[in-house]
Amino acid sequence: MWALGAVGGARGAALAAAAVTAVALAVLAWRRARPVREVLFFPSRPCCIEALLAEAAQPGAPARPCPCPLPSGDTALSRLVRRLLSARRSLDLCLFCFSCPQLARAVQLLHRRGVRVRLVTDAQYMGLHGSQIGRLRHAGIQVRHDQHSGYMHHKFAIVDRRMLITGSLNWTTQAIQSNRENVLVVEDAEYVKAFQDEFERIWEEYNPTNYSFFLKGNK
Amino acid sequence: MWALGAVGGARGAALAAAAVTAVALAVLAWRRARPVREVLFFPSRPCCIEALLAEAAQPGAPARPCPCPLPSGDTALSRLVRRLLSARRSLDLCLFCFSCPQLARAVQLLHRRGVRVRLVTDAQYMGLHGSQIGRLRHAGIQVRHDQHSGYMHHKFAIVDRRMLITGSLNWTTQAIQSNRENVLVVEDAEYVKAFQDEFERIWEEYNPTNYSFFLKGNK
Repeated sequence: MWALGAVGGARGAALAAAAVTAVALAVLAWRRARPVREVLFFPSRPCCIEALLAEAAQPGAPARPCPCPLPSGDTALSRLVRRLLSARRSLDLCLFCFSCPQLARAVQLLHRRGVRVRLVTDAQYMGLHGSQIGRLRHAGIQVRHDQHSGYMHHKFAIVDRRMLITGSLNWTTQAIQSNRENVLVVEDAEYVKAFQDEFERIWEEYNPTNYSFFLKGNK
Repeated sequence: MWALGAVGGARGAALAAAAVTAVALAVLAWRRARPVREVLFFPSRPCCIEALLAEAAQPGAPARPCPCPLPSGDTALSRLVRRLLSARRSLDLCLFCFSCPQLARAVQLLHRRGVRVRLVTDAQYMGLHGSQIGRLRHAGIQVRHDQHSGYMHHKFAIVDRRMLITGSLNWTTQAIQSNRENVLVVEDAEYVKAFQDEFERIWEEYNPTNYSFFLKGNK
């Protein structure tokens, strides 16, 4: 009786475990299937993103505590970084101004991980002090820029051709820590397609074969 | 027989007309119920918006041709203006930079029409040459601004607390006609609520009773 009870109990426990697993998988699938809809407002509290970068570089590796005094809590910046680091295949960036070293490290990490990164930026702002464009080019990331008098003023990113990250935020530490800014994170095929098409148009238009170089004295 | 046929024909025609009307009303209701989802890309071709403003000022009045040489076709700017002019009750504006006279005229027109317009802007940019803020204040529109060192860098509008207009576009003629810019028009309760809450937070924080004035020489 005891033995039977034990067998019945074991069977029951196995059934319960299977049920719990099934429910957990269903919840996971539902959460995965639910498209991302997020709004981030800035300024963001300064935060340490070392743990996020380390986890993205070596998933599952034991975390080493960062000696910096910044907290590593949940902030608008850490959420933005998480969304970027979710890229597996491609990251298309269309950024007026990119001088935030933390975001540049995240982009470089993705590039090293084999994600195809393409970056379009503004010619007048890419050479300013603190710009990360040179560093990213040096790391081997493809960068193209405009040749117009108007600004390439977009501030959007597309992750894996499925998630759009767009708003008022230039990717600068000043904007992240001091300005009132917004960023929408949208996993919506219609919006993503519109921005992806715009990216491809600009990427082709800014192809270096179309650049013209003016020397001083020439007209 | 002929008389009967004529009566039957008239009844049939009436039924057909009723059916057509019902279908037309159903289509109209469906189109109205369908939330707006639009992406506008700039630069926009320069265009004349006089006809749009005239129609909004006096709906149904006979259109007077504008003597300006600009076309009045369908452009990103004309679409943006149409969305703004659809306001019936309220227009909440949160704009880093507002120097476009055409958009200022649209906002003034709404104010005159009795729409409650509130405007939040950036203290450092509102005084620049060409800014429309003084003109709008002079017209009686409520304006509040920040007192921070960081920028109030948002560029969004909320129409009737139901339609969000947001993106990279500052409301300047340079941005509209020369820059690469994007504007999302979203009629989605979740996104609108997030931005409306942000607007109310800022509106309260920038209440003039909280302003502090520093005189030269004081510390």
